[in-house]
Amino acid sequence: MLTDLAAAVGPANVLTGPDMARHARDWMGRYEGQPVAVVRPGSTEEIAACVKIAAQHGVPVVPISGNTGLVGGTMTKGGLLLSLERMNRIRDVKRDAKLVIAEAGVVLTRLHEAAEKEGLYFPLWFGARGSAMLGGVLSTNAGGSNVLRYGSTRGLCLGLEVVLPDGRILDLMSELHKDNSGYDLKDLFIGAEGTLGIITAAVMKLVPAPKAHATATVAARSLPDALILLNRMQEATGGKVEAFEFMPRTYSERLREARPDLGLPFDHIPEVTLLIEAATTVPSEAAPDQNGDIPLVLTLETILAEMMEAGLVTDAILARSEQQRRAMWARREAAAEIGVGLHPEVDTDVCLPLDRVDTFLTRAIQRVETLDPGARTITVAHLGDGNLHFTAYPTRDEGQLKDRVLEAIEDVVAELGGSFSAEHGVGLSKLPSMRRRKDPVALDVMRMLKRALDPQNLMNPGKVIP
Amino acid sequence: MLTDLAAAVGPANVLTGPDMARHARDWMGRYEGQPVAVVRPGSTEEIAACVKIAAQHGVPVVPISGNTGLVGGTMTKGGLLLSLERMNRIRDVKRDAKLVIAEAGVVLTRLHEAAEKEGLYFPLWFGARGSAMLGGVLSTNAGGSNVLRYGSTRGLCLGLEVVLPDGRILDLMSELHKDNSGYDLKDLFIGAEGTLGIITAAVMKLVPAPKAHATATVAARSLPDALILLNRMQEATGGKVEAFEFMPRTYSERLREARPDLGLPFDHIPEVTLLIEAATTVPSEAAPDQNGDIPLVLTLETILAEMMEAGLVTDAILARSEQQRRAMWARREAAAEIGVGLHPEVDTDVCLPLDRVDTFLTRAIQRVETLDPGARTITVAHLGDGNLHFTAYPTRDEGQLKDRVLEAIEDVVAELGGSFSAEHGVGLSKLPSMRRRKDPVALDVMRMLKRALDPQNLMNPGKVIP
Repeated sequence: MLTDLAAAVGPANVLTGPDMARHARDWMGRYEGQPVAVVRPGSTEEIAACVKIAAQHGVPVVPISGNTGLVGGTMTKGGLLLSLERMNRIRDVKRDAKLVIAEAGVVLTRLHEAAEKEGLYFPLWFGARGSAMLGGVLSTNAGGSNVLRYGSTRGLCLGLEVVLPDGRILDLMSELHKDNSGYDLKDLFIGAEGTLGIITAAVMKLVPAPKAHATATVAARSLPDALILLNRMQEATGGKVEAFEFMPRTYSERLREARPDLGLPFDHIPEVTLLIEAATTVPSEAAPDQNGDIPLVLTLETILAEMMEAGLVTDAILARSEQQRRAMWARREAAAEIGVGLHPEVDTDVCLPLDRVDTFLTRAIQRVETLDPGARTITVAHLGDGNLHFTAYPTRDEGQLKDRVLEAIEDVVAELGGSFSAEHGVGLSKLPSMRRRKDPVALDVMRMLKRALDPQNLMNPGKVIP
Repeated sequence: MLTDLAAAVGPANVLTGPDMARHARDWMGRYEGQPVAVVRPGSTEEIAACVKIAAQHGVPVVPISGNTGLVGGTMTKGGLLLSLERMNRIRDVKRDAKLVIAEAGVVLTRLHEAAEKEGLYFPLWFGARGSAMLGGVLSTNAGGSNVLRYGSTRGLCLGLEVVLPDGRILDLMSELHKDNSGYDLKDLFIGAEGTLGIITAAVMKLVPAPKAHATATVAARSLPDALILLNRMQEATGGKVEAFEFMPRTYSERLREARPDLGLPFDHIPEVTLLIEAATTVPSEAAPDQNGDIPLVLTLETILAEMMEAGLVTDAILARSEQQRRAMWARREAAAEIGVGLHPEVDTDVCLPLDRVDTFLTRAIQRVETLDPGARTITVAHLGDGNLHFTAYPTRDEGQLKDRVLEAIEDVVAELGGSFSAEHGVGLSKLPSMRRRKDPVALDVMRMLKRALDPQNLMNPGKVIP
């Protein structure tokens, strides 16, 4: 197989042995794979050729792009790791149509830069944007901080190019906003984590670049009070809140411990710290008034002042410069990194109806403490979407205890109508949850679809579907 | 089979013979079906029972809801028509979560009313809203006039309940804004026109009700000038344009002919008549100022005045009351009705990239006239989405001529990167287009999915997939 692959993509692009280290191991060091080789095709046709060669040899194919995943979705023992890193062309940016056509190996930051040049914004934004690639974010339907305003990756994708398990190329590269010519195939591949085919390129929406931001770090008494702030700001701006991030006391304490260099915004640690950001594209809301104040910022300032008056907000700092804004975001985006340092851990990525997030936190913390008195929990959330990264740190590194803690948390999620998987994907790490929690009929339909498209079970086998 | 069905849903809900007339024939009178019976189940469980009974007898099942479709999607000869009309419960409206949970037989107008009571809006709006039902609009991924701002039906759906071809109930009734627990099954059933299962209920998003509208009928010189108006209004309002409807001279002439009672807005017929509507939920943009003027309306008025000054707009009328606004909409919403009166016709529902709509119209009219000098064409469009209803009326009622006219129009669509099917679905009427125009690999994937979920080919067979 390696000879055939070398003929297809060039010997320099077939890696084996120690050369595979960078790809075989995930960035957190949790999953250590043993691929037969890493292949780095440079075109859609080369990807198709690799998939056909692997199929002829009955070898599984596992796609990998930026290797920033959190669920072990690219781990393989015995499979061929197909890296998209050479599929790194931005094929076109269309300013008037507000879209970008890019290959799966383009890093998000490059999409941000390409959009900015045209006065536009690519609204997929999270900590790993400097490494994460388009193919990976599509395959996991990644979320991030701007979902509240612009939707998940799925909602930003207009068209898709996919190499199917049989090596054929499925061209769904539509640039249209309406297209009802048959089944919605595109959305089947988005979020399928490479188990139904390999996403090789996509047409992604861009939005007008904000002309001004209003960003604040806010200290609040409680989560319900925080939601009042969100509602007031949404009403006053007509839905211009782009991010509403929730960092309770547990998060701030861990941040101080792990990243003292980032500082804390207030001289005390409040029960709830929020990062709220709104943005406008309307010139009259973005241009400084006669006092040099930006109207959108004034709106946020007025609402914060009213809420402080009413005792719902206890402190607030407005970002007065891009530097201050970046510093506020740095404290939020340290989340992935500061979580990785503690062991043993049980991490979750859950979604709840917005009005049940508070109940979830109370109940989940209570159940964890009942099971394991002394266990620590840390939460950080995209509160505007009801999406929480709730992590428990048990006192003992015992598999059985960790399982019970996870099940207890997921019990609460299920009781409140939530999902055990919000934005990180399923991969390997959430397979037990899929088995226990997913509706059996839905699981069965997933299996029927998988069998139909990948009868040999060679596309990222053993992921997503238990 | 009829005995079994009568036992499952009650004899009064199994219609045969002349009682089936209302369901068997489509509203335009184009498709005359011959179902074995019409069954009207009253619950999801009853629907599941009917599907199982039909499967036991090897009889196809064809769902029907409001019977407002335009593509013959509910026509059947020998199948069982399963009417969703008794599935008409609004199960819940959640004001804070901004969603409605409703069954497939709920008429859209009832959703509009239910939302309005909570200060919310259900943003799916088109002429047939008084008859069209939720199940049908989901099954065809219907569009309408507000897609520009709020997206198609697909984008408004959070959760779905489906009866599968084998009679099992698939419960995807999520109320969450993020849920990545496995494949995106929901979007596979949306737009599948009942060929993969029967949609029985859904969780649909609501949005804050607009506090003010700014609506105008505008006379413009050309389509490119019209797009300048759209861009200026979008920039000035930050994307608050809800509808941007395009009615060229051919449309206005037909309107005057078929519905003289509706009147025409201007004393002459301009090349291009536009209906533009923006809406705001922001109190400060909706409240009358000291002169009694509404800021959002002033914004539109200012832009129109500037464009008249520049000669891009030749005339404009602002709606000064809800009655005037309704009159403007009545002229646009007469489209379906005034088109039906002329024969023979070749109607299309195409989507183009926005910057190619003008080229499409020029080329398509030219090719139709070359094929059939004297043929008439009428266009009406959701211009903001690039979605045109372009209809040709050949001079002779010959199948071969009509086919050639259709192919000539679709050639232009294909040349310009468009889709032959934007928002009406495929049904029977677009099957030839699917055969000729759809990517063969995509068609093959559709067939694989259909076989996987409906191996007996009993769910609305012969529709969507050629």
